[in-house]
Formats: sequence, structure tokens, C-alpha cells
Amino acid sequence: MVAEPLEWRKYDDAELPRVLEAALEAFAKHGYHGTSIRELASTAGLSVPGLYHHYPSKQDILVALLEDVMRDLVQRTAAALEEAGPSPAARFDAWVECLLRFHMFRTKHAFVTSSELRSLEGDNRDRIVALRDELQGMLDHAVEDGAAGGTFATPYPKAASRGVTVLCIGVSSWYRPDGPLSPEDLVHRHLVLARGVVNATE
Amino acid sequence: MVAEPLEWRKYDDAELPRVLEAALEAFAKHGYHGTSIRELASTAGLSVPGLYHHYPSKQDILVALLEDVMRDLVQRTAAALEEAGPSPAARFDAWVECLLRFHMFRTKHAFVTSSELRSLEGDNRDRIVALRDELQGMLDHAVEDGAAGGTFATPYPKAASRGVTVLCIGVSSWYRPDGPLSPEDLVHRHLVLARGVVNATE
Repeated sequence: MVAEPLEWRKYDDAELPRVLEAALEAFAKHGYHGTSIRELASTAGLSVPGLYHHYPSKQDILVALLEDVMRDLVQRTAAALEEAGPSPAARFDAWVECLLRFHMFRTKHAFVTSSELRSLEGDNRDRIVALRDELQGMLDHAVEDGAAGGTFATPYPKAASRGVTVLCIGVSSWYRPDGPLSPEDLVHRHLVLARGVVNATE
Repeated sequence: MVAEPLEWRKYDDAELPRVLEAALEAFAKHGYHGTSIRELASTAGLSVPGLYHHYPSKQDILVALLEDVMRDLVQRTAAALEEAGPSPAARFDAWVECLLRFHMFRTKHAFVTSSELRSLEGDNRDRIVALRDELQGMLDHAVEDGAAGGTFATPYPKAASRGVTVLCIGVSSWYRPDGPLSPEDLVHRHLVLARGVVNATE
């Protein structure tokens, strides 16, 4: 039996377990330190002991949430790169489109991930940062390969790769589904901008 | 008597009033909703009534802090543009360098501004957003002028302008003063990237 290939462009409404969905809403609104276990339990429709049955602490909820968010993005990115094949230009475009769509359709997830990384403790932080670095590494490789082969003319592949990442992430700070541009238009425009950052030659 | 021109490249250690400095530290660490007035007073070396004497509420402290941060950036940007003169290419470079330096030397300020905009109420939010829009407008003009005159070849001046902004802002998420690159090197590299975003022709 072969697993269905992941539809990396498709975003459904609700994909998180109930407690994590409640945590996402609360952390986005009041922050991790501004949210109590009692509020989380009530929003999730659980008693406090019921909540503790699933997660031993608020910290466990935060790390489960961020891990879920990052793993989703890592899996989508891997599927997008798989679909793109070996060409550095195609891999670059796939990576950019995937990160863009994620930051258009998961704005709250992205906001909580970036604003509450500070609230992760010890190993938890290391684990999430490792996932983030894994993602950045995928783009770094595509840009470095492209720069080595002449597809990208940038003299600074590493800085360009990081620049492209923040370019995609930045979309989450202003994108609204009811805005004037369709997701496809936005993806197209940002691909043009991102190719500018790496000085794409094709 | 003529006022000294603002040295927009210069960042001193402490420029905030004592209460706002305490708020900056606390909000950066625990968030606005995770910080109590009692903690703020204690960090600032004041009694709670003493603190209320200066600021009637925690919300007043947040808006004073963000307004101070945004006004500082607006003034620096105006000084940088003034120094650059009328050429769109020079104005673009000045704007980018100014926003970059701000996000290298005011990382905590930038983080609190972006993560706690959600916590501003009503008119307070409108006022800070207006300052942010004023800043973005300065770059939009430089990019639109440059696109109209052929200095920038981008087909999407508005999207490019926003892309350049997030490129500069993104620096604050990873810049460390003890990193391998000097501020001047970082500015140089990011100017190259930013010119790529607008397809600079010179």
C-alpha cells in the first residue's frame, strides 16, 4: 500500500486537535504567559484535570502546538520539492510557493510560532529550532546549487536564501483572504520578487 | 538657532524613559498580557501608585512605548532621506540602510512592536498603524518614482516595496552584534538583495 502524496497546496479549515486549536487562539490573542490553563481548558470544553490528562503542563501544550505547525510545514515543503524534481530553479520556486501559501493560510500559526519561540524551555526550544533550521537548509541547498550552476547570479547565496525566507514569512503580517489579489496572483508576484533576491538568470 | 541634524546611523544604549525601558524588557520576555503593573513598577524602581502617577494604565505604557519606537524610526528615516537628496536610487538605499540598522540595533523594540500591536486598543492601534503606514509610504514613493523613471525595472513596485520592508525587518530575528559580519557588511549585502527585489538597473 502506498501513501497518498501530500497535497501541499491544499489548506483545510481545522486540522489541529481540540486543545491545540484552543491554545492557538488563546496564544495568538493574549500570548503564552497571558493565558491560563483554566482558560485553555474552558475554551477546549474540558475540565482542568481533563486537560492535564492530555498534556501535563502548559509548556507541553505550547511545544506540541509548535511542533505540529513546524512538522506540517516541513512535510509540505518536502512534498513540494519532490514534485519539483532536480532543477535548482524549479526547487527554488517550489520552496518559495510552499512557504508563501503556508504564511497566507496559516497566519495565526506563523504568528504564534515566531512570537512564542521565546517561551519554549530548554530541549523544547532546541527541537523546534532544529525543525526551522531543517527547513532553512532545504532552501539554502537549492540556492547554493543554483548559484554554483549559474542559475542564480547572487554573490551572497546564504544571505539571499535567508532574505527569501523572510520575504515569504512577511506575507503573514498583512495577507487577508478577502484582499484584492488572488492567492495565485500573490504567489506569482512574490516569485518574481524572490527571483530578484537571488538574481535569477533564467 | 538651528537644531543639530539627527545622526540616523547612531544608536546609543539607553534612550527610553525608565518605565518604558522596564516595559520593553518585560513585554519582550513575557508579553503584554503576561506582565503585571506590579512587575513593571518593581523593575522600574517605583511603587505602584508612583507608576500610576506617570501612566494611568498598562495600556498607556504600551502605547507610549510603541509610539516612542515608531517616532524614533520615522525621524531617523526622514533624516536619512534628507541626506540622500532627490535621486530615487539614493533615497531607496538610504531608506533600506536606515530600516536595516534600526532592526539590527533595536531588535527588542522591533519584536515588541510587531508582537504587541494586537494588544493596542481602538485609537491607540490606529495611531501606531498610521505611523507604520507613513514609513511604508516613504519607501513606496521612492520605489514608485524609481520605477516610473526606469531606475527600478520591477513590474510590481508596491509589492516590491513591501517585500523590501520585510527583508529589512527580518534581520531583527537573527542579528547578533557578536556575529561574524560587521554592520557595514550586513548593510552592503542587504542593499544588494533589496536592489534585486526592485530589479535595480544601475
